[in-house]
Amino acid sequence: DTDTDCAEVCEENVLCTFETSAVLSESARDKNIFVHGKISGQDAVVILEKTPIQKEVLGQILSESSLKLQMRNDIYSTYQLQAPAHLNEIKTTVVFPATQKHIQKYRRQESFLLEETAEDYLSITLPFIQEQRFSLQWVYNILEKKAEAERIVFEDPDPKTGFVLLPDFKWNQKQVDDLYLIAISHVRDVKSLRDLTSEHLPLLRNILHKGQESIFGTFGLPRSQLRVYLHYQPSYYHLHVHFTRLGFDSPGCGVERAHLLQDVIQNIQSDAGFYQSRTLYCPLRADDGLLKKYKEKGKI
Amino acid sequence: DTDTDCAEVCEENVLCTFETSAVLSESARDKNIFVHGKISGQDAVVILEKTPIQKEVLGQILSESSLKLQMRNDIYSTYQLQAPAHLNEIKTTVVFPATQKHIQKYRRQESFLLEETAEDYLSITLPFIQEQRFSLQWVYNILEKKAEAERIVFEDPDPKTGFVLLPDFKWNQKQVDDLYLIAISHVRDVKSLRDLTSEHLPLLRNILHKGQESIFGTFGLPRSQLRVYLHYQPSYYHLHVHFTRLGFDSPGCGVERAHLLQDVIQNIQSDAGFYQSRTLYCPLRADDGLLKKYKEKGKI
Repeated sequence: DTDTDCAEVCEENVLCTFETSAVLSESARDKNIFVHGKISGQDAVVILEKTPIQKEVLGQILSESSLKLQMRNDIYSTYQLQAPAHLNEIKTTVVFPATQKHIQKYRRQESFLLEETAEDYLSITLPFIQEQRFSLQWVYNILEKKAEAERIVFEDPDPKTGFVLLPDFKWNQKQVDDLYLIAISHVRDVKSLRDLTSEHLPLLRNILHKGQESIFGTFGLPRSQLRVYLHYQPSYYHLHVHFTRLGFDSPGCGVERAHLLQDVIQNIQSDAGFYQSRTLYCPLRADDGLLKKYKEKGKI
Repeated sequence: DTDTDCAEVCEENVLCTFETSAVLSESARDKNIFVHGKISGQDAVVILEKTPIQKEVLGQILSESSLKLQMRNDIYSTYQLQAPAHLNEIKTTVVFPATQKHIQKYRRQESFLLEETAEDYLSITLPFIQEQRFSLQWVYNILEKKAEAERIVFEDPDPKTGFVLLPDFKWNQKQVDDLYLIAISHVRDVKSLRDLTSEHLPLLRNILHKGQESIFGTFGLPRSQLRVYLHYQPSYYHLHVHFTRLGFDSPGCGVERAHLLQDVIQNIQSDAGFYQSRTLYCPLRADDGLLKKYKEKGKI
């Protein structure tokens, strides 16, 4: 079919003439890369992603490839395997012509690890939070049942130790494999981990235990299958706790940002001022206003 | 060099005769697969993982590959790209001969969160570790330069505070995006976090600071881009520290298993017996012998 052949050649030409301007983002784990460039002078975004290894062609991959030994130690050896191209395709997506919005959307921000001492918190982070005045109206709407009331899985209405439990937006509730719920406290004056003291122990224990019980009752997952944690920095400054399924790599469960609720409780039990006195580490994205403040002070 | 050529051909044959018994696990996200099979009648585990897309060869990939159009909709189109094999390698690890333990290790399992009190550690976990007598010969081979000597990135030979720093097997060293190195202490009597006391502060600080410096010197990543942590439970009971790139979701960096080295140091500074007295939480896979011990005692 000459028409198809011609179309294919033209398609090939499209990427042949692609001139790379910048790598917008890439993930070594996901094995993908997002690239901004030009095709005939117009903006384009090209996304490459390696494909999952298919069981069905495994035998062929192992028998039809060439192997280059890299390292051997005892019973372990590693190789570079070069497979026939048709058994090892790369998924390619082209956005053409692309707008500035597309280009922004695919741009990734670097993260930096902030080392926040107790003094840094008081002199830099706290003033920044106060001056930003992030709106928490959407949180109050949930607590007051003005929004998302039908999504609530459980509520303890106690004004001091109570909370509302509801599914995170990232979870579609279709399977428990990626279960993700959020508990939001009724108490409104706890901005983050930094505000927690022994006076909050009853609140924290209540969230942990009733949250676990209610997830077991509603979704059948026992507490041994749950990862329960707070973020620091949180994405909004009203106390909330994440419940995700153990074994599911939920975004934001990394040790640099997540604090296991059970550890938080133990830390406060042994030192009521733990979170007021400690140096806390947290990742900040390159475009975060807080990072800018720390950079201005020469702290990062 | 005919010897090398011959060795390479033999290596190829090893996988040519590989007979698949079962897929132990696979990840569509990570693009890897763990396969159990036989080589000349003996058990082997073969791990294939696609490699991250390297910026450096992106131009070549785009210009030297063939493209097959799959779908077009408005400004979006998708293709299957077939790249030259040397630009699209698959990282291959062979464990041969493999024991039942290896096969178990790579089989996908549910995880359970263990709540290990100080007493549980002494009465259940410690006896289990001692009775298992996991071989650490491969670790000693590295420390004594009997294996992998050419992979060492940095060494501090001090017997008390020294360590060897080398790339983790999971990292191919082609890009820093998924940088992953391991520091292994010369000290041999620290099994895990549980053994760390104030006497180890100089060792821990040395690993943190010299590890960060050496990674900055060799790979150009400053400490603000590094996540430095220990695992509990570790996969082998000889003190080692993980250095991974912040922003790269390295497997095992979740809050349920990882402990930030900076936090470990702070914890021991404020309480020398912190890790001997605390309840520690850690995930255990369904087939872990330790989980069985805890189940027998009715603890999980």
